[in-house]
Amino acid sequence: MQLSEQSDLPLYQQIYEKIRHDIEEGLYPHGSKLPSIRGLAAELACSRNTIDAAYSQLVQEGYVESRPGSGYVVLDIRSDAALLQLQEREAAAALLGEPRRPRYNFTYGNLEAGTFPATVWRAITDDILLSVESGTCNTYTDPLGEEALRAEIAWRLSTQCDVDCTPGQVIIQPGTQVSIQNLLALFDARTDVVAMENPGYIGAREAFDRSGFRVVPCRVDVSYDEFFADLERSQAKLVYVTPSSQFPTCKTMPIKMRSKLIAWADANDAYILEDDYCRDFRYKERPQPPLQSMDHCDRVIYMDTFSKSLSPALRMNYLVLPPALLEKWRTLFANAYTSVPWLSQAVLTRFMSQGHWDRQLRRVQAKNKRKYETLTASLHTYLGDRVSVLENGTGLHLLVQVHDERTQQELIEAARAADVLVYGTEKYWMGSRPLTTRMLLVGFSSIAEEDIEPGVKALAKAWFGE
Amino acid sequence: MQLSEQSDLPLYQQIYEKIRHDIEEGLYPHGSKLPSIRGLAAELACSRNTIDAAYSQLVQEGYVESRPGSGYVVLDIRSDAALLQLQEREAAAALLGEPRRPRYNFTYGNLEAGTFPATVWRAITDDILLSVESGTCNTYTDPLGEEALRAEIAWRLSTQCDVDCTPGQVIIQPGTQVSIQNLLALFDARTDVVAMENPGYIGAREAFDRSGFRVVPCRVDVSYDEFFADLERSQAKLVYVTPSSQFPTCKTMPIKMRSKLIAWADANDAYILEDDYCRDFRYKERPQPPLQSMDHCDRVIYMDTFSKSLSPALRMNYLVLPPALLEKWRTLFANAYTSVPWLSQAVLTRFMSQGHWDRQLRRVQAKNKRKYETLTASLHTYLGDRVSVLENGTGLHLLVQVHDERTQQELIEAARAADVLVYGTEKYWMGSRPLTTRMLLVGFSSIAEEDIEPGVKALAKAWFGE
Repeated sequence: MQLSEQSDLPLYQQIYEKIRHDIEEGLYPHGSKLPSIRGLAAELACSRNTIDAAYSQLVQEGYVESRPGSGYVVLDIRSDAALLQLQEREAAAALLGEPRRPRYNFTYGNLEAGTFPATVWRAITDDILLSVESGTCNTYTDPLGEEALRAEIAWRLSTQCDVDCTPGQVIIQPGTQVSIQNLLALFDARTDVVAMENPGYIGAREAFDRSGFRVVPCRVDVSYDEFFADLERSQAKLVYVTPSSQFPTCKTMPIKMRSKLIAWADANDAYILEDDYCRDFRYKERPQPPLQSMDHCDRVIYMDTFSKSLSPALRMNYLVLPPALLEKWRTLFANAYTSVPWLSQAVLTRFMSQGHWDRQLRRVQAKNKRKYETLTASLHTYLGDRVSVLENGTGLHLLVQVHDERTQQELIEAARAADVLVYGTEKYWMGSRPLTTRMLLVGFSSIAEEDIEPGVKALAKAWFGE
Repeated sequence: MQLSEQSDLPLYQQIYEKIRHDIEEGLYPHGSKLPSIRGLAAELACSRNTIDAAYSQLVQEGYVESRPGSGYVVLDIRSDAALLQLQEREAAAALLGEPRRPRYNFTYGNLEAGTFPATVWRAITDDILLSVESGTCNTYTDPLGEEALRAEIAWRLSTQCDVDCTPGQVIIQPGTQVSIQNLLALFDARTDVVAMENPGYIGAREAFDRSGFRVVPCRVDVSYDEFFADLERSQAKLVYVTPSSQFPTCKTMPIKMRSKLIAWADANDAYILEDDYCRDFRYKERPQPPLQSMDHCDRVIYMDTFSKSLSPALRMNYLVLPPALLEKWRTLFANAYTSVPWLSQAVLTRFMSQGHWDRQLRRVQAKNKRKYETLTASLHTYLGDRVSVLENGTGLHLLVQVHDERTQQELIEAARAADVLVYGTEKYWMGSRPLTTRMLLVGFSSIAEEDIEPGVKALAKAWFGE
């Protein structure tokens, strides 16, 4: 195999191309085995990871499969199995709403390539798995999460975020939805109603639904007066809110409304679930203090995630419970285990205690700020007053409403035809959808900084032909 | 610092002892900093992991604390903070039912030190975090679990365990309890009743309770006739069973009862949740085929875990859903994310595809078989006919009933006074407890092989004074 260091293609891609070519030409017949990763790496004097990357791509594209004990075996590329595998993969991708690599993807939620600090994570994982601590992998661990991690979190919450808590109140969880499911065990679906913002985060709403709770929508899209009118009527025992950056409208709950909400909870023997997923992303002004910090009657359950600043694939978030609920939790989960791997927790603990976390957060904050500024400026330049932009100097997306009669779906499809992905917002509304549902979600956490301006330009061309 | 290679103490222990001594003597005053791990490792010409282990122990015992950005800071060992920290830790340990390192701990569930393949796990994690794949850490991943992992699992289930399934039916989950909670979203707590074995796994029962389902106990401790009588009366839509090794009685469900159970489900439009946690541990005869393999009417939900053979701290198990429920699951969880970290899944996938998993399983099976044999032989030798032993050549524990009038608690305390831990079984019973609740649980998955015989000898002495 001839590899060129001068090629534009990375090494693994060259290896992949060569082997694929050989398979297609019949040099590796159906059922034959590829050279071992170790062997080929030695032969080509490159790293095993390079070979591994090439082989992974071949597997992904259905040319070979990895069989336990046999290594990589070449598939019949015209066989039913190979075709079926490809089709299943494409069907699965379609089902996930993941079109194949569009040029400009203004998706929400995912992070930009390179955000996850793989090198540091690897070094810390190495250290831990080499040390005596790794023995912990043989045991069930603290059901509420590793004590040292809860201490790192509580320390930052208390000193940096005005959230008043002890490590004992922090519960490590495997994501927002499981957190909500677990929290609902403290309530009773037969008698307790849940209220939430409308529009609001569909992941939360579906978690309430799955647990059999009746969910009352409270309008936030016009003003907070309507929100409170709906909330008062709801007789809810739990209300889910996103005060630092309401999802998806990006509104910030005013300080007066925050006091009012806490007073409501206190008067109604209810609890507030404050999802502060966007705490760290404010680009214009300092954040408002969280509800939790204003709560003197232990009515706020605080929730935050590591998905927006470290990794959505890490599946880690946490709850901070007021003391009365913590007692109830300990009783109800007396024989339960944690759902978060010890190793993830141990690595994150050291990542925080060694200062990497603070650097990571600053880096992601700075990057998102630049992207936010580029996106708002580009929308102004290229779309001008043919659209309204709803944003608030916060969050990881903004909303765009086009001033003409086209439907949301027509706009999404026109953009997609030009290789630009923007997203609908209908699913965030419960009940009858007002006009505002015609707003489109344009996210900036995943797209590369340098793609934002050309992406908006392409969008303008797709929508307005210029 | 003088370290000795001839010492009986490991290096890290020597370092720990020296620093602790210095702190106690006031050489490191309150608020001073320990040398950096890197610096001390260089000075002593040992690895950073050694220093890290020593420092971890100092942290654990409340002598120092790790402060972000400041390193390891010496605490005032007589201060309230240090005392409180120690007390909290001890209180937490007590709450978890974890007394400090008893000499002979016949606990259930945890694995023996050294079971987790830390070295291989580390090497694979390294490879993955060095490769292009690590970019996946920036995205939300397949909500049902990584396709390659589901394929590895389905392949083994189909070819080795008689479980008939495709990768599409396998759902990766973060543990039995969350699996049950999620599964219950497919049922309705207002109308659907759940049945389960009595006695049975308390973790399952509490998960049903937390989701607000009424649970009907079905007696398995005498004969399966009573189980079916209770089940018929229950009108349940879901029944939880552990047919390969009933927990905690270790009974195997006879083949005739298996057919009967499936027929019951089919006739009643109900589902069976088959928790096959003990499939891999049979020491006398070949396993019965799982219920799932006999099910021709898509009534069985199959569940298995990696906790008993790889790591309880990994927090990974899986469900295999029949097609109709899979459709429903996809709808209900349309906007949900997976709760299992991508990295754990990616490492486990390669661990399986490279053949490590099969070796790991054989190793743990062989070890547990030897331990089972030693334990049953030792019980026979030292306790003889003063006790009855309930076991079935399966599982990771057995039950011991003492032939006298002492209560379970008296027996547990007598053993504990002799530094031997055995466990009660009362909590596994629902409703009124029959005589059989006086059986004690003696586990062998965690205790070292060579501790079993002396442990049983100590138990005999504690109970019968010889």
